[in-house]
Amino acid sequence: MAQPTPLFNRLALIGVGLIGSSIARAARAQGAVREIVATARTAATRRRVAELGLADQVVESNGAAATGADLVIVCAPVGVCGEIAKEIAPQLKRGAIVSDVGSVKTAIVRDMAPHLPPGVHFVPAHPVAGTEHSGPDAGFAELFVGRWCILTPPEGTDAAAVDKLAAFWRMLGANVETMASPEHHDLVLAITSHLPHLIAYTIVGTADELAEVTRSEVLKFSAGGFRDFTRIAASDPTMWRDVFLANKDAVLEMLGTFNEDLSQLTRAIRRGDGEALFEHFARTRAIRRGIVEIGQDSPAPDFGRAHPGLPDAPLPRPYAVSDET
Amino acid sequence: MAQPTPLFNRLALIGVGLIGSSIARAARAQGAVREIVATARTAATRRRVAELGLADQVVESNGAAATGADLVIVCAPVGVCGEIAKEIAPQLKRGAIVSDVGSVKTAIVRDMAPHLPPGVHFVPAHPVAGTEHSGPDAGFAELFVGRWCILTPPEGTDAAAVDKLAAFWRMLGANVETMASPEHHDLVLAITSHLPHLIAYTIVGTADELAEVTRSEVLKFSAGGFRDFTRIAASDPTMWRDVFLANKDAVLEMLGTFNEDLSQLTRAIRRGDGEALFEHFARTRAIRRGIVEIGQDSPAPDFGRAHPGLPDAPLPRPYAVSDET
Repeated sequence: MAQPTPLFNRLALIGVGLIGSSIARAARAQGAVREIVATARTAATRRRVAELGLADQVVESNGAAATGADLVIVCAPVGVCGEIAKEIAPQLKRGAIVSDVGSVKTAIVRDMAPHLPPGVHFVPAHPVAGTEHSGPDAGFAELFVGRWCILTPPEGTDAAAVDKLAAFWRMLGANVETMASPEHHDLVLAITSHLPHLIAYTIVGTADELAEVTRSEVLKFSAGGFRDFTRIAASDPTMWRDVFLANKDAVLEMLGTFNEDLSQLTRAIRRGDGEALFEHFARTRAIRRGIVEIGQDSPAPDFGRAHPGLPDAPLPRPYAVSDET
Repeated sequence: MAQPTPLFNRLALIGVGLIGSSIARAARAQGAVREIVATARTAATRRRVAELGLADQVVESNGAAATGADLVIVCAPVGVCGEIAKEIAPQLKRGAIVSDVGSVKTAIVRDMAPHLPPGVHFVPAHPVAGTEHSGPDAGFAELFVGRWCILTPPEGTDAAAVDKLAAFWRMLGANVETMASPEHHDLVLAITSHLPHLIAYTIVGTADELAEVTRSEVLKFSAGGFRDFTRIAASDPTMWRDVFLANKDAVLEMLGTFNEDLSQLTRAIRRGDGEALFEHFARTRAIRRGIVEIGQDSPAPDFGRAHPGLPDAPLPRPYAVSDET
């Protein structure tokens, strides 16, 4: 196959954690950009990015990264994106596209847009993908394949810029959806991502503080369901602190509905109302089926977790069947 | 390797769903028993068990299955185990071991023990393993490898019988733990299994009933965390109805603690208390690490979910970089 022509000459990544480093790897693997310039907040991360060869240039400041870039993607916790926009604004070249990867969009538009100069195209983006691991070593080129990337361009954004960023994400394997309203994005993600994380963080904390159950018991018997929650609750604390601060209203609204539903199931348990429980438990299977059908989760049981083989099992002597038993 | 001598001459399985059929497959693969007799509630399941060749004999009644068996394992929802014990009691041979696989142990002891005749050894068991799928086709021989099986023999149970059942589960690859108190088992499992399921069932129901977010949006953007919960919420409704009815007190106690913790995090969100959120989110990573370290979950990111490769990505023409940009 002929080498694809790059979409952008120079991609600047501001922040190179799980998401930023996955973008770097995928953009390079796909030939989506000619050159990658990267920066990170700490010297240790910048050094690691250089060691991993994730970028053509690693620079020390956000301004230096943005200079001359055609596409700038801010891959930092939501809470610092406004400040970064302010810092890079003077260096942005006319016609550049500025984007982000934040899990919240209303706050991003509110915090970043006012700093960006005219002639620069601001196209907020949210790739709905990730793992529980963080940092530049955790990324991989396939992270976005088959996942959705949501764009929320403010009204009046240049359509060509939106299309070009959409093409970039498609080259990385993502499906692209454009939402006119960042508020709607935040409501949708409050239920499909933020509330699940909040609940997982809560229950893992609850389990760890019980007086009657030891931590060793919690760990050993976690395969009963609990371990699934610990994966999500191992996600980056800074990123998630910022998500909840920035998407407070939508999260509180979803929490209200969740609490009502939990009270209803609690009441059914207290009253021994088996019919109500069965009816609820039977309904939720359809959602799982739908997710697997559209390719958003593995059809393999247990997420396709590996199962080691059976042990060689020579029978312990005292238990051998004798004829008299 | 020499063929191992079987631990039991005849194993009777009463119920052949995910767990029962996995026991059948593993016991046969390991040569743990000489013969397997199975029965199931419905004719359709009995037919399927015969088709799959899971047992040497498929019989129509619980009593017929128990007749002449050295080990009887009741693999049925918790709510019907008492009735089954009553049915099989007259057929049980002297010296037989009767066990189960229920996720609740206090109710099992209360419901089954009174029916069992003297000379029969009752050793309740709970293999903490499973998937979201149900039925005889869903089982596999490796299901119990590396997982824990908890035995809760009532005081005074014959030690040799307990040891022999423990040896059986070890042949199937499980680790075995004996707990003196079924009440303690129920408290531990309330937090490591029952509450996680209740919460997963709740949030999946909540997401499905929102007025502002469509089901299609919930499915598409589920990779943000929600999809993990849908797996658990796809578990067998009958089994789980019975678990919550049978372990009401422990579940309600854990729910109380969970609700307090959730209120505290909600308050932190409402007040914009980033420090409290960060502090909580940073603590829960250690639990995940502990679970992976003791081999109760995969160290691979995202449970080791498969990631398809990057697409062949010829560049869409209109976006090619030209010199003037």
